[in-house]
This record gives sequence, structure tokens and C-alpha cells, in this order.
Amino acid sequence: MTRTVYYVACTLDGFIADEHHSLDWLLKQDIDQHGPMNYDAFIDGVGAVLMGATTYEWVLKHQAGSGEGWPYTQPSWVFTHRDLAAPAGADVRFTSAPVTAVHAEAVEAAKGKNLFLVGGGDLIGQFADAGLLDEVMVSYAPVTLGAGAPLLPRRLDLRLRETARNAAFVTATYDVVRAGA
Amino acid sequence: MTRTVYYVACTLDGFIADEHHSLDWLLKQDIDQHGPMNYDAFIDGVGAVLMGATTYEWVLKHQAGSGEGWPYTQPSWVFTHRDLAAPAGADVRFTSAPVTAVHAEAVEAAKGKNLFLVGGGDLIGQFADAGLLDEVMVSYAPVTLGAGAPLLPRRLDLRLRETARNAAFVTATYDVVRAGA
Repeated sequence: MTRTVYYVACTLDGFIADEHHSLDWLLKQDIDQHGPMNYDAFIDGVGAVLMGATTYEWVLKHQAGSGEGWPYTQPSWVFTHRDLAAPAGADVRFTSAPVTAVHAEAVEAAKGKNLFLVGGGDLIGQFADAGLLDEVMVSYAPVTLGAGAPLLPRRLDLRLRETARNAAFVTATYDVVRAGA
Repeated sequence: MTRTVYYVACTLDGFIADEHHSLDWLLKQDIDQHGPMNYDAFIDGVGAVLMGATTYEWVLKHQAGSGEGWPYTQPSWVFTHRDLAAPAGADVRFTSAPVTAVHAEAVEAAKGKNLFLVGGGDLIGQFADAGLLDEVMVSYAPVTLGAGAPLLPRRLDLRLRETARNAAFVTATYDVVRAGA
């Protein structure tokens, strides 16, 4: 059963990037790559990837900078109204369709695996608005920024499923409580 | 040895109150009063209480509404430029002095116990700016608000000391890492 999951790292004060789209505050932290809520275990269960254009451009720039290629083998959707180019050999599909339509397409492509919502917060908010966000998996880095890109700019109730420490991080998995549920 | 501690509940996205100063999102949550990072254990170690005027007025209104009196037996300082009245029988001192001066006074009054910074975030930021914030103890409620009063509007590095689940909450205790330390 496919679940739609927002898997993200965040500051204590709820920012997923600083004012200059930087993740320097995140990348300097200690993490146990085999510990709770680790990326490898998570990405193994992912069948499709969805993200906004700012996140897409950050991934491209960051991966190019580190000499790595496009990080996802899964079919990936990028929400944008602009004319962007896909990395060579990558299955990247640009769309300006409503989230509901893209969600249905991605669920089909994921073949029972989960959808990974990478960011940013406002795109996640659109999925939540449409009742399509199932789960939030958040890793809190031991930092406050005071300003930046918000985690999830909506009013939502969640239910804590599990929490654990991973090195410098507090990790937590939440189910989204749907209105009326 | 007196430590200066910001003990606070927060949403997943870093807000300590909603846009209307409400804590309804917090007060509806399940909590184990004897569980990790519980209030009774914390307040036992507190020798003085410091807060901003908005927080003070929320406490007064909330306690009056619930028929309880002023909740603190410890000497309490309220930072304000306004002319406010103290509740009958309560040791509440209004001040517009710099945080460093009030901090020194409160440390002396606390007689080796800790200082409890109640809020709001900007006052805590002033303590951090002055290098006087030692510890952040935060309980994350399973809610996002998207807007409201910020947890701690500064850029700070912290060190995770411990984390645990308490019913609906993820609790975490951090030491503030001072610049140059």
C-alpha cells in the first residue's frame, strides 16, 4: 500500500533551509548512516519522488558540486511553471498539473512502494490540502536559524508513531490526522 | 550551579503560540505528568522565573480563567516597558533593565537553583545574544501551525543531551554551544 511521505531534516525552530537556500547547518551534523530513520532504509521503500523546483535546483547544484549524478533511480516529478532541463539519463518529469493528478500518476509508477515528497514546504502543504499527505518523517538538527524556508506552512494535526535519537539528531515519524478522521 | 533554561512546548514547525496567542493546540495533547521532562520535576529545580510581558499576560489570563492563582512560588521577573500590576501575594517584579542586570539579580535570588525562561522567543534571543542561555528543553507537540510566535528567533548551535517520548510529545534537552566554545 503506497504511502505519501514527507521525509525531511529540519532545525529546532522549523526551517528546512536557511534564507539563502543553504543546508550548511545540516551537512555539518553527525549522523549514523545505519541508525534510526536512516536515508538508505527509507529510500529502499520509495517508488517515486516528487519535489518543487527550488528543491530540484538545489539537488542539481549540490550533486554537481560534489561530483555525483542525479541521486534518484525512481521516476521523479518536479513541479514547475518554468522550462527546466533534466539531467542526462535521469527519469525526471516536469509538471505544472494539479497535485492530485500528479499524485495518481506517481502512485501508479511507484508499484506499491511509497512516494517521497522531498520539499519544499509549500508543495507539501498542497498535498496536505488535497488530503494526500500520509506521513511526516522529520530529523531535527541541533540548530536554530530564526528564519528560512518553513517545514510545512499549514495547520495540521499529526499522531506520533515513533521517535529515536540518531547521533546529533532527534528523529520522529508522524501520521497525518485527516480532518474528520 | 545555576543554569539558565528555556523550558518550552513547541509545534513541529517551531511555534510556541499561534497567531492569536492561543495554546489550544498544546493543551489538547496527551501528556504523562510523571514522564520524561515533566514539569513537576523541572520546576522543583527552579529558583527564579523570567518572562516577557505577553507571556505574563497569557499566564494571568489562563490561570484566572481556570480559577488557579499565580503559578510560581519562585521570585519572578517580567520584562516590560508598561505599567503592569502584580497578582496579590505573588513575588513578581517588573523590569525594563538589560537582561544581563536582571540575570545577575535572578541568579542571586535563585540560590544555586536554575533560572526558568518561560518565553517569549525574542526575550530568549536576548539572553542568547548576551551569552546567558545555557539550555533549551523543548517538548514537540504533534501539530503544525504554519504561523505564530517563533521558538527562538536567532541563529544558534546546540548539542543534544537527551531525548525521549512523553505520550504525544517528543522531548529533547539541548546545551547551547557558545560562539568560540
